[in-house]
Amino acid sequence: MRQPFPFSAIVGQEAMKQAMVLTAVDPGIGGVLVFGDRGTGKSTAVRALAALLPPISVLAGSSTNAASAEDQPDWADPLPGDIHDIPTPVIDLPLGASEDRVVGALDIERALTRGEKAFEPGLLARANRGYLYIDEVNLLEDHIVDLLLDVAQSGENVIEREGLSIRHDARFVLVGSGNPEEGELRPQLLDRFGLSVEVRSPTDIPERVEVIRRRAAFDTNPQAFLDKWNPEDAKIRDQILTARAALPKVATSDKTLHDCAELCVALGSDGLRGELTLLRTARALAAYQGDAEVTRTHMRAVAPMALSHRLRRDPLDEAGSSTRVMRAVEDVFA
Amino acid sequence: MRQPFPFSAIVGQEAMKQAMVLTAVDPGIGGVLVFGDRGTGKSTAVRALAALLPPISVLAGSSTNAASAEDQPDWADPLPGDIHDIPTPVIDLPLGASEDRVVGALDIERALTRGEKAFEPGLLARANRGYLYIDEVNLLEDHIVDLLLDVAQSGENVIEREGLSIRHDARFVLVGSGNPEEGELRPQLLDRFGLSVEVRSPTDIPERVEVIRRRAAFDTNPQAFLDKWNPEDAKIRDQILTARAALPKVATSDKTLHDCAELCVALGSDGLRGELTLLRTARALAAYQGDAEVTRTHMRAVAPMALSHRLRRDPLDEAGSSTRVMRAVEDVFA
Amino acid sequence: MRQPFPFSAIVGQEAMKQAMVLTAVDPGIGGVLVFGDRGTGKSTAVRALAALLPPISVLAGSSTNAASAEDQPDWADPLPGDIHDIPTPVIDLPLGASEDRVVGALDIERALTRGEKAFEPGLLARANRGYLYIDEVNLLEDHIVDLLLDVAQSGENVIEREGLSIRHDARFVLVGSGNPEEGELRPQLLDRFGLSVEVRSPTDIPERVEVIRRRAAFDTNPQAFLDKWNPEDAKIRDQILTARAALPKVATSDKTLHDCAELCVALGSDGLRGELTLLRTARALAAYQGDAEVTRTHMRAVAPMALSHRLRRDPLDEAGSSTRVMRAVEDVFA
Amino acid sequence: MRQPFPFSAIVGQEAMKQAMVLTAVDPGIGGVLVFGDRGTGKSTAVRALAALLPPISVLAGSSTNAASAEDQPDWADPLPGDIHDIPTPVIDLPLGASEDRVVGALDIERALTRGEKAFEPGLLARANRGYLYIDEVNLLEDHIVDLLLDVAQSGENVIEREGLSIRHDARFVLVGSGNPEEGELRPQLLDRFGLSVEVRSPTDIPERVEVIRRRAAFDTNPQAFLDKWNPEDAKIRDQILTARAALPKVATSDKTLHDCAELCVALGSDGLRGELTLLRTARALAAYQGDAEVTRTHMRAVAPMALSHRLRRDPLDEAGSSTRVMRAVEDVFA
Amino acid sequence: MRQPFPFSAIVGQEAMKQAMVLTAVDPGIGGVLVFGDRGTGKSTAVRALAALLPPISVLAGSSTNAASAEDQPDWADPLPGDIHDIPTPVIDLPLGASEDRVVGALDIERALTRGEKAFEPGLLARANRGYLYIDEVNLLEDHIVDLLLDVAQSGENVIEREGLSIRHDARFVLVGSGNPEEGELRPQLLDRFGLSVEVRSPTDIPERVEVIRRRAAFDTNPQAFLDKWNPEDAKIRDQILTARAALPKVATSDKTLHDCAELCVALGSDGLRGELTLLRTARALAAYQGDAEVTRTHMRAVAPMALSHRLRRDPLDEAGSSTRVMRAVEDVFA
Amino acid sequence: MRQPFPFSAIVGQEAMKQAMVLTAVDPGIGGVLVFGDRGTGKSTAVRALAALLPPISVLAGSSTNAASAEDQPDWADPLPGDIHDIPTPVIDLPLGASEDRVVGALDIERALTRGEKAFEPGLLARANRGYLYIDEVNLLEDHIVDLLLDVAQSGENVIEREGLSIRHDARFVLVGSGNPEEGELRPQLLDRFGLSVEVRSPTDIPERVEVIRRRAAFDTNPQAFLDKWNPEDAKIRDQILTARAALPKVATSDKTLHDCAELCVALGSDGLRGELTLLRTARALAAYQGDAEVTRTHMRAVAPMALSHRLRRDPLDEAGSSTRVMRAVEDVFA
Repeated sequence: MRQPFPFSAIVGQEAMKQAMVLTAVDPGIGGVLVFGDRGTGKSTAVRALAALLPPISVLAGSSTNAASAEDQPDWADPLPGDIHDIPTPVIDLPLGASEDRVVGALDIERALTRGEKAFEPGLLARANRGYLYIDEVNLLEDHIVDLLLDVAQSGENVIEREGLSIRHDARFVLVGSGNPEEGELRPQLLDRFGLSVEVRSPTDIPERVEVIRRRAAFDTNPQAFLDKWNPEDAKIRDQILTARAALPKVATSDKTLHDCAELCVALGSDGLRGELTLLRTARALAAYQGDAEVTRTHMRAVAPMALSHRLRRDPLDEAGSSTRVMRAVEDVFA
Repeated sequence: MRQPFPFSAIVGQEAMKQAMVLTAVDPGIGGVLVFGDRGTGKSTAVRALAALLPPISVLAGSSTNAASAEDQPDWADPLPGDIHDIPTPVIDLPLGASEDRVVGALDIERALTRGEKAFEPGLLARANRGYLYIDEVNLLEDHIVDLLLDVAQSGENVIEREGLSIRHDARFVLVGSGNPEEGELRPQLLDRFGLSVEVRSPTDIPERVEVIRRRAAFDTNPQAFLDKWNPEDAKIRDQILTARAALPKVATSDKTLHDCAELCVALGSDGLRGELTLLRTARALAAYQGDAEVTRTHMRAVAPMALSHRLRRDPLDEAGSSTRVMRAVEDVFA
Repeated sequence: MRQPFPFSAIVGQEAMKQAMVLTAVDPGIGGVLVFGDRGTGKSTAVRALAALLPPISVLAGSSTNAASAEDQPDWADPLPGDIHDIPTPVIDLPLGASEDRVVGALDIERALTRGEKAFEPGLLARANRGYLYIDEVNLLEDHIVDLLLDVAQSGENVIEREGLSIRHDARFVLVGSGNPEEGELRPQLLDRFGLSVEVRSPTDIPERVEVIRRRAAFDTNPQAFLDKWNPEDAKIRDQILTARAALPKVATSDKTLHDCAELCVALGSDGLRGELTLLRTARALAAYQGDAEVTRTHMRAVAPMALSHRLRRDPLDEAGSSTRVMRAVEDVFA
Repeated sequence: MRQPFPFSAIVGQEAMKQAMVLTAVDPGIGGVLVFGDRGTGKSTAVRALAALLPPISVLAGSSTNAASAEDQPDWADPLPGDIHDIPTPVIDLPLGASEDRVVGALDIERALTRGEKAFEPGLLARANRGYLYIDEVNLLEDHIVDLLLDVAQSGENVIEREGLSIRHDARFVLVGSGNPEEGELRPQLLDRFGLSVEVRSPTDIPERVEVIRRRAAFDTNPQAFLDKWNPEDAKIRDQILTARAALPKVATSDKTLHDCAELCVALGSDGLRGELTLLRTARALAAYQGDAEVTRTHMRAVAPMALSHRLRRDPLDEAGSSTRVMRAVEDVFA
Repeated sequence: MRQPFPFSAIVGQEAMKQAMVLTAVDPGIGGVLVFGDRGTGKSTAVRALAALLPPISVLAGSSTNAASAEDQPDWADPLPGDIHDIPTPVIDLPLGASEDRVVGALDIERALTRGEKAFEPGLLARANRGYLYIDEVNLLEDHIVDLLLDVAQSGENVIEREGLSIRHDARFVLVGSGNPEEGELRPQLLDRFGLSVEVRSPTDIPERVEVIRRRAAFDTNPQAFLDKWNPEDAKIRDQILTARAALPKVATSDKTLHDCAELCVALGSDGLRGELTLLRTARALAAYQGDAEVTRTHMRAVAPMALSHRLRRDPLDEAGSSTRVMRAVEDVFA
Repeated sequence: MRQPFPFSAIVGQEAMKQAMVLTAVDPGIGGVLVFGDRGTGKSTAVRALAALLPPISVLAGSSTNAASAEDQPDWADPLPGDIHDIPTPVIDLPLGASEDRVVGALDIERALTRGEKAFEPGLLARANRGYLYIDEVNLLEDHIVDLLLDVAQSGENVIEREGLSIRHDARFVLVGSGNPEEGELRPQLLDRFGLSVEVRSPTDIPERVEVIRRRAAFDTNPQAFLDKWNPEDAKIRDQILTARAALPKVATSDKTLHDCAELCVALGSDGLRGELTLLRTARALAAYQGDAEVTRTHMRAVAPMALSHRLRRDPLDEAGSSTRVMRAVEDVFA
């Protein structure tokens, strides 16, 4: 398997990189939706993420990346019980993947040859404790997106079919890329992604030259390039691990809760997922930056990615949704 | 399995909570339809309901939650006959579930390996004596909704297929959530739900702060949070059990019947399901509140949830349907 | 199985009840189409009919309700030959039933395990000598309605498929309910139903109160309610049996034939099914009322149900079709 | 099986009856298309035809109605060789019949159990040497109509599928009924039917009374009614047999050929099927009437049924197509 | 099998007959598309062609009409090696034929019973060295037409499916008939037919009389009619065989190439298939007429059939496409 | 198998030929999209390419064209290990090919007969280290194009289905032909092709005559024609091999990177694929022409094929996209 491009060598695209890092600190934030033009390196970034993320300890042979024998689902065959480290899984969901392939299915071979009803885990099992990436999520059928978001939210994949009643852990962060020019997502679905970021082609010539230069260097001699950027990637990885440990201790004052609520009311966002996500993301950022308490600075930094996909369209306001979020932040925090 | 959020810790949303409680007192009221914006905690409430409801006694091993060996369907394999308590089932109907999965199907494994025609019960069997929850009921195909409402009403699931003629009890309350912005239900289907309630995001800042505070507390330390709210949940559970016992003794005067009829004629609701449901819901409320007779106070309290989804659209009246129901109540009861 | 609501306890809806009774006297009249608002008790009435109808004698074990060993189809397995009484079958045709399920199909199990081509009868076989009920017939696919009407008319189900050439008796009355607001039936299909009636919600308060009172009484104590109304139902049942015996002896004068023809020409109804049905229904009414000859009184009573679904739409005449039929009756019989 | 209504007892509808009789004299004329209102007895007439037609001699056990062992297709199992008489087959093609059912298919049972590729003949085999009736031909899929017309024209059914290359005689007359209000046939298909006739409900009261009277007599006592009309049917049957023998000897003068061509050019009918059919039908009529030569009287009698479905629509001419044909006949024969 | 109508007895339709004859001289010209009204004898002509064409020598038992054991595809079972003459195959492609049936497929019987992957050749194999006829080519699905044209052009059928990689010769001329009133062919597909001709019903009375006379004679006594026309058919057959032998020796001057190019540029036909086909068809005509060199006379004779289906539509030019081709010929050759 | 037309004998069409040659020098450039009228020899050119390309060394029997035993995928059966030369594969993707056929599938035969899960490689395996050609790529379903571009870009085919998790090398250049008149490609897909060229019919008479002359010569005597052009083809093949070796040593100055970026910004092309491809193609051209460094001359030569399919439509600029690219080149390089 080819080595992916290093995460830290990606030029610009700070919001996207930060969103990914924060979901690595607290996967409970929920999925990330990356909007953007074609050719802006969305899939490169996700593959880069794979190499950046800290490894996980799993029971050798576990098809659901179970951490120990106790976490193995009851339908799985018994395993010797060795524990080893594997890279954080980043699973690609191919366009046109069948529901069976995603959620798992009856193992037809064993059914036919041995008359046993065995379960064959799907992509959701393999994504457990990692990331599930969908390119062009707007081209997926709604019911598959729905299913993915349901599982991502509950952390559990429940299969009720053909006489099977099977469940296994499926805690993963969903990363979807989409091109707003091709088909929209229903607001219902949008709202269920934790964060959203937008990526654009840089218009700055030196930045573009830097992109080409790094890419050409990587194409010419991948190993040298990886060696050069490895320390940068390692630094981010360590910072994520430190933040994870600190997260439960980050304090959130009542004023912070009040800020969250006021901001969402000002923006008129439906429901309460907005403030819940804002709070959680701000905490993750505080943890990542080594701060002991969530402040308005943290909230200001993450408000656009936590809220901009939850606004209703306002035909009288031509500003982009991130701008509208920032304007509301300034009003409320004034 | 993760513990759900406690029912009594849900902030606001009184109509939805009351509708659910009343169907727990008298499941004969029929299903509940919850309309509302995204992110208003509809699915949280249903899952909370699961922990609140009183347990049921079932024959151990029964796939239809039979209360005793006598209630087992004749096609089921014999069981030892032990009785034990299980939580009231709250079954989730996944979007895209096949009809086979819902109503049950031939057990293909046994057919192939042993040449026997065995029946494999579906979700309707598992929902017997409990709740069946459908998120975004307006995205389900009409014929599935139809089928679910037929079974919910008759209390029996009859399968006539592939040479099978099988029936089993399927007494459950259907709870459907829907977003009025995405596809409407046919009036025919609307009318067959017993109750309907609307939920909205709160616009009151302190209420929103309270929602976030409780949610954050639950996320941080679920067990402590559950321990705190458990007594509240238990209180409601006891009140439901008391009401169930009292229900047959609640009196309904002729004047009450007359009120029901007059109200429905004033509202011009088609058919007679309106007054039948209104009466039944008012009786359940009287029982829940410990009253011996149905009064206009009870009818006034439940009229909106029993009638507002049965009105024809009136293009000249811009008021919402609940307002129209309350206006008619005031006129008739004046 | 739960006891249905008693037929004679249904408040009002006289035309629907009479149409059902007359097809019980002479099933050759053909199917009944019940148009009406939601919630007007159409399906309650059909289920009530089941308990009202006289029992039939059948060969024990016959899957087609054969009256004797001679009536068993030749493909059926031999039976011991005992005769017993069963309730007149009223079979429900579920929306979305496959054609296989309706007409019968190859028994796949026997084909696979024993290499035999055996026939598995469908709903049409079970409806033989009884009623087949379709709720919301306008939602069924045309070719299924077509097939049902073909069989209902010929009294025989012929299956020509997968090398099978099988026939069995399928004499039943089709009862369809429909809501005119949801999809229309093709005139071709309408014309092939014998009778049509319309049901509406009562607007009279005392009548509605009576409906609620009886329903509440039935819900509270079904057995007491059934005991109370049983004699009424028995009276109708006896009257049907007497009428069946008298039917062949009811006289029809040439003047009656002439009246039928003149009435249909005056109404401009296509084809000749109108007068044939009118005559037959009037005879059944005469027999039911104990009269020896068909008179204009009988014809006047049944003309709306026999003819109103056969009129072409007249854009200049805003009257309903029943009114138009009655007006024509008055003109012709003047 | 129930006895059909006698052909000769059908009141009126002379054109339809004559078209059917002429195709019995010369099946080479091609199919008959019967247009008409609902309820005008189209399907009654076709079923009546079954009883009228002369019997055919077939090899006992032949699935293709072979006249002798020499006519058996080579793929059929050998038969003892007895010859017996059977009624002329009139096969009903059910709406929604699969192509397999129509043309025949691989016998799956034998393939699975004995590993043999055996052919299971379809409706086309059973219709050989008889009639194939399609109710509402305009509701059939075009490719099935096409296939039926191909086979009807070539007299042979060729199946090339799943490694089978099978052929058998399939000489039959196609009779299709259609309601012009529901979907039209492509001109390409129309043109390939030999004859077309239109049937209407009678508007004459005594005629309608006669229809009802005969139908009621048949419903009351079928056997007596059949006995009464049998001699009439037998007379027609004998006349058909005489005409068949005489047909090859009927003379057609050059003037007759010229008349046919001139008439079709005057009508502007596409292609040459018009005159070929006109000539053939006129010959059959001459034979049926015992005449030795085709005359203008014969041509005038059959021109509407042979030509009216081959006219292009003329927006400036509001006359019906039969009227236009008759007008052209008068002009050309003037 | 019935004898087809003799080719030489077809009245008129010279262009169609010539196009067919020229493709018999040089099959490399490509397919023929016959446009025309219904009933103009298109399918009669193709079936007539079958009897006219010279026989071919094939290896007895070869499913691909191989000329010798060397030409047998390697996947075919070995054959004894006898050579015999068979009529030039003219294969009918039925509307609705599956792709499997056309290109061949895995032999399921052998796969199931013997576990062997055997190939079952399709219609393309049977058409090898002959003609493939498609009635109403405009009703075929585009991808099937595409596939047929690909194979017709490459002369080889390559099947890559289910683990099979199989190829066999499939050199045939495609003859398609189409009615321009029913659906058009994509220009891409039109361009890939070698020749196109148009047939119309004659409007000349004596010609029509002659058509009827010959047809009636053939219907009355087929054998006598065939005997009468056989010498004519034989003459054409001999002329084709002579032309085939002469074809390689027909000279084409540079001036001829220049004429072809200039003509196509003048007509603005896309691509270069126009001139390549024009040249090839003119050579075949020269060979058929016994000329040693291609002249402008030959090109003038075949230009309409080689070029008229390759013109772009010109909204300003109301002339038919053949007229436009002839006009260009006169201009260029002036 | 027939010999294809020689690549060097193709008259004109320089851009198409150059694009193909450059992807042979550096397959990392990505796919080539050939737009053009029908009949302009697109498929002839691709087939010609097959004979031109240098042979590759493969492990005998490898279904994925592995270079050595080390490159064999782990799921493949072991092979003896002989290495031999085969022509560079040019695989044709037939319209309507199933996804199974393209990516590979479970070997059903082995699954059924031996109960083994074996993988059957598809067209992507056979195209490894070669070319995959799709005629009329705009007629393919989007998800197949997507899949092909994904694999082409990653160089690896990953199959996750039916319990299989299989990967194998699939490094190939995709060549697609399309007719802009028939359905467009999504901009997302367009952008993922490396190069695009347009081909048109020549309008120059001598050039057209030359095309016909060469084609006629090839049709008359293929071997002589091939012998004549073989040295030309060999020259190109040698030049490609030399260029491949030189490629890593071709220098690219910072000024070149800057030129690339500035050109793409000036053209407003989305994303960064434009400049990356431009740089890579220019390097390949430098290598092919024996130059040591990329210059503006190289960039100018390849800019239209690398960039013109990445422009947004500009409704105010009627110039073709190649013209717009050349204009931008002149501005930026001025």
